[in-house]
Amino acid sequence: MAAVKVYGLPLSTCTARVLTCLIEKGVDYELIPIDLSVGAHKQPAFLAKQPFGLVPVLEDGDVTLFESRTIASYVSYKYKDQGTDLLRLGNINETALVGVWAEVESQQYNPPISTIVYELVIKGMYGMTTDQAVVDAQSEKLGNVLDVYEARLTENKYLARNFYSLADQNHIPYIFFLMKTPLASLINSRPHVKAWWEDISSRPSFQKVLANANV
Amino acid sequence: MAAVKVYGLPLSTCTARVLTCLIEKGVDYELIPIDLSVGAHKQPAFLAKQPFGLVPVLEDGDVTLFESRTIASYVSYKYKDQGTDLLRLGNINETALVGVWAEVESQQYNPPISTIVYELVIKGMYGMTTDQAVVDAQSEKLGNVLDVYEARLTENKYLARNFYSLADQNHIPYIFFLMKTPLASLINSRPHVKAWWEDISSRPSFQKVLANANV
Repeated sequence: MAAVKVYGLPLSTCTARVLTCLIEKGVDYELIPIDLSVGAHKQPAFLAKQPFGLVPVLEDGDVTLFESRTIASYVSYKYKDQGTDLLRLGNINETALVGVWAEVESQQYNPPISTIVYELVIKGMYGMTTDQAVVDAQSEKLGNVLDVYEARLTENKYLARNFYSLADQNHIPYIFFLMKTPLASLINSRPHVKAWWEDISSRPSFQKVLANANV
Repeated sequence: MAAVKVYGLPLSTCTARVLTCLIEKGVDYELIPIDLSVGAHKQPAFLAKQPFGLVPVLEDGDVTLFESRTIASYVSYKYKDQGTDLLRLGNINETALVGVWAEVESQQYNPPISTIVYELVIKGMYGMTTDQAVVDAQSEKLGNVLDVYEARLTENKYLARNFYSLADQNHIPYIFFLMKTPLASLINSRPHVKAWWEDISSRPSFQKVLANANV
């Protein structure tokens, strides 16, 4: 039995972020599906683990964690001696750069791309109508962020510097869904961003997440 | 001359987050004002340090960092042997809990409170009109987050557990501005949140940030 349990949905973006990290670090885990369609995440048993009623949750021995970026950092830190070195803990300047670009993902990139994916993908799954004005405004914001990425990735192979890190990895799940929409053009029109996306998404870790989800 | 330089505005919320951390950790710094009113943050010299044109930026020797939460984590980690222990690095379970609640600040609390402060405080400074529908919607979201905090702070003195940490500290700047508005009621109506706010905001670190800014 795996020591690490993940409660979530395999293709929820935040669950996929955590699973990609666990696989990249070579950590065995057991995925316990939470059926959002019947509101399992709003039941007392789940709320006792996660008071906001959001997936995923990770249990590792006697510690219970939530917030996917924190879980990914925790896994990368605790299991630093196995799998891919995602935090560069041996060099504080490199660790700091990983932190900067991981936080850029959280603060600059995630708000527009998560809104776009909600409008263009999630709403469609529930028969709701896309608000095109919201998509247009967020698409402009995301484009501005990706302009900075294009410049950065022209100088460095990856966001922090010339090594793959948690900063790159945390971006994967939302771009995966964006690429299913007409706004894939935001990625495809920027050659260094496009090459970076093709590189990071083709790693065995994320491919295994997709395969396990039967996508 | 201080080794650490901070480029920013003393009372921008994100600059205040960084300054509070530096003072709490006992790290000497030099504050280099960036005059946002003349667009200094959009000039090439600043964009070379921070490609998104946002304050603050921290320079520590040969490392240049941005994103206030990353800077605060970096300062807490690098200077772990001095000042207040903000990350509890000696106990990985406690460090993980600090990470969870610091990320709750970033993902759950910051979006609604920063929008409310923008509508009620910042727009007023620029003669713009508050969008009351936005304030109402975000106020409901923030209230739901603070309900979780009230339950958490009934069981623990601080968010991570019974110790002051970076998770609490990162909340300070936005509540400071919220308390200047009628929506201070969101804090004052929740007794444990109110007591927590009075505790964390009265610490010498944030009081010194205010005094230095002549507030």
